[in-house]
Amino acid sequence: MPAPCDLLLTADLLLPQDDARSEIADAAVAIAGGRVAALGPAAVIVPAFVPRRRLDLGRALILPGLVNAHTHAAMTMFRGLADDLPLLDWLHSAIFPVEARLTPAAVRLGARIACAEMTRVGVTCFLDGYLFSDEVLAAADDAGLRCVAGEGLFAFPNPAFPDASAALAHTRARAGRLADNERLRQCVLPHAIYTTTPEIMRAAWETAGELGIPFVTHLAESPGETAQVMRQHGARPVEYMRRHGLLGARALFAHCVDLSPEEIDILAASGSAVAHCPESNAKLASGFAPTAAMLRAGVVVGLGTDGPASNNDLNMFGEMNAAALTHKGNLSDPTAVNAAQALDMATRGAAEAIGWPELGRLTAGGPADLVALDLDKPNMQPLHRPVSQLVYAATGFETRLTVCAGRVLYEDGAYAAFDSEELLVEAADLAAWVRSHRP
Amino acid sequence: MPAPCDLLLTADLLLPQDDARSEIADAAVAIAGGRVAALGPAAVIVPAFVPRRRLDLGRALILPGLVNAHTHAAMTMFRGLADDLPLLDWLHSAIFPVEARLTPAAVRLGARIACAEMTRVGVTCFLDGYLFSDEVLAAADDAGLRCVAGEGLFAFPNPAFPDASAALAHTRARAGRLADNERLRQCVLPHAIYTTTPEIMRAAWETAGELGIPFVTHLAESPGETAQVMRQHGARPVEYMRRHGLLGARALFAHCVDLSPEEIDILAASGSAVAHCPESNAKLASGFAPTAAMLRAGVVVGLGTDGPASNNDLNMFGEMNAAALTHKGNLSDPTAVNAAQALDMATRGAAEAIGWPELGRLTAGGPADLVALDLDKPNMQPLHRPVSQLVYAATGFETRLTVCAGRVLYEDGAYAAFDSEELLVEAADLAAWVRSHRP
Repeated sequence: MPAPCDLLLTADLLLPQDDARSEIADAAVAIAGGRVAALGPAAVIVPAFVPRRRLDLGRALILPGLVNAHTHAAMTMFRGLADDLPLLDWLHSAIFPVEARLTPAAVRLGARIACAEMTRVGVTCFLDGYLFSDEVLAAADDAGLRCVAGEGLFAFPNPAFPDASAALAHTRARAGRLADNERLRQCVLPHAIYTTTPEIMRAAWETAGELGIPFVTHLAESPGETAQVMRQHGARPVEYMRRHGLLGARALFAHCVDLSPEEIDILAASGSAVAHCPESNAKLASGFAPTAAMLRAGVVVGLGTDGPASNNDLNMFGEMNAAALTHKGNLSDPTAVNAAQALDMATRGAAEAIGWPELGRLTAGGPADLVALDLDKPNMQPLHRPVSQLVYAATGFETRLTVCAGRVLYEDGAYAAFDSEELLVEAADLAAWVRSHRP
Repeated sequence: MPAPCDLLLTADLLLPQDDARSEIADAAVAIAGGRVAALGPAAVIVPAFVPRRRLDLGRALILPGLVNAHTHAAMTMFRGLADDLPLLDWLHSAIFPVEARLTPAAVRLGARIACAEMTRVGVTCFLDGYLFSDEVLAAADDAGLRCVAGEGLFAFPNPAFPDASAALAHTRARAGRLADNERLRQCVLPHAIYTTTPEIMRAAWETAGELGIPFVTHLAESPGETAQVMRQHGARPVEYMRRHGLLGARALFAHCVDLSPEEIDILAASGSAVAHCPESNAKLASGFAPTAAMLRAGVVVGLGTDGPASNNDLNMFGEMNAAALTHKGNLSDPTAVNAAQALDMATRGAAEAIGWPELGRLTAGGPADLVALDLDKPNMQPLHRPVSQLVYAATGFETRLTVCAGRVLYEDGAYAAFDSEELLVEAADLAAWVRSHRP
């Protein structure tokens, strides 16, 4: 007898990103209670369900919702404000003066715009680090997205917390509140070696262990950082982490551009994961991460956009494209970081990296986070190899449908959680606020 | 007394890419007879015209139609067929076996899909090199786009012509037919040093001079090419061109990845132009062109997507993004190839490079080729700096309106020259035809 379900989708093509990396033609996905009830050939699935809503997508490709492994969503407020500048000019002229006066309302608004953008281009989960991270979680909650938010820990006061202990106490206090949340999680996020102390790092590591949540920090982002950490601590960044016992399966390191082959092996052996942000690394001239070597060594690598001040978007399709192209050029190797690896890093890899491995793939019983792309767009035609099309030809705006935890968040131009007019007014207000605080 | 015009557009923002790189708020563009009748503040322009059609675009940004300085449009037929492979595997397993059996109909169809894609993402003119180039011109004509097509010249027979002389004779014969064409032009296009002879190159150069059309070839695409040209001719590629008198204002060289500083100076001094294709160069692992140095030296540089078999799209927004990001990463210089330079290379620079300098900018009396982008999309908000938004945040799918020679080719989902259903059937047929000819 057919079972009831909330939503039954059919489409020409389904890439569930399962272990076999199946490509299922004439496929269907049944969703019930926010989870995938069943998926497979439409001929098998459709007769087995009585859906509350049925949606025939036709010439569309369904894949898991993309996972953004590293961002600072609220930094949409700085989008395009200061590009093409050396890092220190950028920070001092554009970012720091505004961040010094940051308010919860500004963070909420910036994150809200980011959530609209991610919804539009098929991102259903993001790991975020910023100040006032409660506001980021609230924005993600309102948007219907999943989020792993970390409060930035620093060795100096910031507008959110006077010190890292206070921020860590806040993280511990919010653990209970998030314990049963299906979509919202948290991590601990000491900003970087050069903005914290070994004591802050160790306290963060302990809190992460105690709460069973990820430990996230920026690591080895550039040769300049390595030089600074060497000067201050007499060790390269990975050695510093090792020395202080900060490597392991709960660790997620953003960037990892300046790594030696030995350091790659250390990350792999320890089970530490990496968030690879190729567009930000290029834009800030940090260099090209050894991504092909990390993947070869078995490091868990997820893709992240980094914040929209250094990218300047939150588009994981652009990030897949950059990952697949850049390393080929840099290594003079056309086989480096192939399309399947790029797609993996934006789905399964990112999910594993942020400690939420049931995301980034579609399986019966798993979370119903998915995206459907329009195959009718001329850049998607002709269609020889779907994975190639996703990585090398799609822009993200082919997204027709974004579903998170079983809820339709975007469908053919309509947002469930955003009023476009309202968002534009808010964005203009935010832009004016940011500019009023520039030196 | 107000003058009549065909179309009167208003929008929140206009970037005409004039010499001052103006940004005009609350702007209007009046179009009459396929040309810009006037442009400027709406308060001035609107009362001066009585339009046949008025279109208020609201929160949109108008800029000149983008110019793709180097592509092989018909190669949409190979899109995604063979990626992540060494160049020779790619050519021998996927491209050559099909190209050996190429037909005019296949080229027409491939170019037709390409024209739909370019229309969708705001490209109004492309320089193309392929076999059966009459078909490419016909596809561009049907699409309402501008095209500069070149018949590929080779030292060996191909399905279109038995030898280069026959192809050159065809080019000369078609000159009369194209003489008064407003949108269609041609160039001579010897494929590359390593696939032609000095005699073919010189004959092509003379024909280009005789007809007053561009001389286009692939040059210095990779260190591998340099080595091959050194072996065969005892000269590096630029020296080979100089030795044979093939440098000058009529010359456009695609790629120019492997250039010495002296060779950059030679190109600049001779007035030779370069078509820079960063995504293709990365994907084929050719390397990173010295674009920042070329621009510094005053070389005319236009951006091109290259063919969709090595990109895999025809999206100039992606190409601007790649140009602005890649060189920063490669040169460890966050100021390398800034947003304004990237936009220039996709508009004015590309127009100059292909010998059609009135394109790529909007001026009173100039061609009415323009694009309007939707500023409402969340990735375009907030809007601090329009040029940054175009280069670092836009995907191309923000295009709401594409106008070429005064004719609306795309408007809010509707194509003037394409039936989407028909195009999909054609694309499926083409894909099947290509796969049936693989070894």
